Amino acid sequence: MRILGIDPGLATVGYGVIDSVRGRMKAVDYGVIETPAGLTLPVRLEEIYQGMKELLAAFSPHAVAFEELFFYNNVTTAIAVGQARGVLLLAAQEAGLPLYEFTPMQVKQATVGYGHSEKRQVQKMVQILLNLPGLPKPDDAADALGIAITCAGAMGPMIDEQYGIR
Amino acid sequence: MRILGIDPGLATVGYGVIDSVRGRMKAVDYGVIETPAGLTLPVRLEEIYQGMKELLAAFSPHAVAFEELFFYNNVTTAIAVGQARGVLLLAAQEAGLPLYEFTPMQVKQATVGYGHSEKRQVQKMVQILLNLPGLPKPDDAADALGIAITCAGAMGPMIDEQYGIR
Repeated sequence: MRILGIDPGLATVGYGVIDSVRGRMKAVDYGVIETPAGLTLPVRLEEIYQGMKELLAAFSPHAVAFEELFFYNNVTTAIAVGQARGVLLLAAQEAGLPLYEFTPMQVKQATVGYGHSEKRQVQKMVQILLNLPGLPKPDDAADALGIAITCAGAMGPMIDEQYGIR
Repeated sequence: MRILGIDPGLATVGYGVIDSVRGRMKAVDYGVIETPAGLTLPVRLEEIYQGMKELLAAFSPHAVAFEELFFYNNVTTAIAVGQARGVLLLAAQEAGLPLYEFTPMQVKQATVGYGHSEKRQVQKMVQILLNLPGLPKPDDAADALGIAITCAGAMGPMIDEQYGIR
C-alpha cells in the first residue's frame, strides 16, 4: 500500500510518499511545501491546503500519517503549527482517507528501535530502510518519510485489508 | 457594510454578524458552530470548515474579523484552537474576503473603552451598542459580536471605501 507521511509546519511542510509491499518499502517521492514569511497568514494556509490537495491527487495514497506534537518552545509556535496542521488534516479528510498520527517517540521507536534516539539516527535508518543513496534532504522531508515508515509498520496490514490489497 | 466576527475554537466557534451603516450598528445574526467531542479531529475540522462556508454563503459579509489570541493555559489547547482557526481562516480566504484580527484587549478597548475590563462588561456594551433585549448568548457568540463591532469601528470606513459603499 502507499502511505503519505506529513510533518506539519507553517513555513515548511515535509512530505514523504512510500510504497510498502509485504514489508518491503520504497520511497516514491519526498520534499517540502514551503510558504514564504512575506505572505499573509491566510494566503500561506491556502497555499498549504492547495499543496496538500496536489500531493493527494498526484500520489493517490491509501492512508495519510501525521506527526503529532505535544511540546513546543512557545505557544505562538504551537498556534502557527496548529493552523497549518488544521488545513492539512482538512485536505486529507476531504479526500476520504484513513488518517493516523504518530509522536516523534513512536517514529524513533519504529525506525531506530529506541524512543529517545537522535534525529540523525532516525534519518540514517530512513535512508537504510528505503535504500536511498544518501540521507534524505531536507530534514522535514526525512521526518515525513520516517512518519510514513512508522505508519506502514504499525498500520500496514490493517490498511492492506481495508483496501483488499494482497 | 456587513462584518462577520469569529471567536475560534474546536468545540465551539462563536459567530456574530453585524451591519454597520454610517456608524449605526445592528445585529443580523449570532450563534455558535459546535462540534461534539465524540467525533474524530479531522471530522470536527471538516464540520467547522463547512459551517464557516455556510455562514459566508448565508450572510455574504464584506469582511471577516477573527479573535487573535496569544495566551493559552496550555499548549494542547493552543494547538487545538490553532487547528480550528486554520480551517476558519482558509474558508474566509477562499471566499476572497478581507480578513482582520483583533486581540481581546482591542475588543475591550473598542467596546468598553478600557483594555482591561471584565468579559461581562464587554457583553453588556455589545448588548447596548446593538440594542439587544438582553445579553447575547452564548458567551462565544457575544465575543464574536464584540469582535465584529471592533472591526466596524477600526476598519469600517476603509471597508466601505473598498466596496464603494456610501
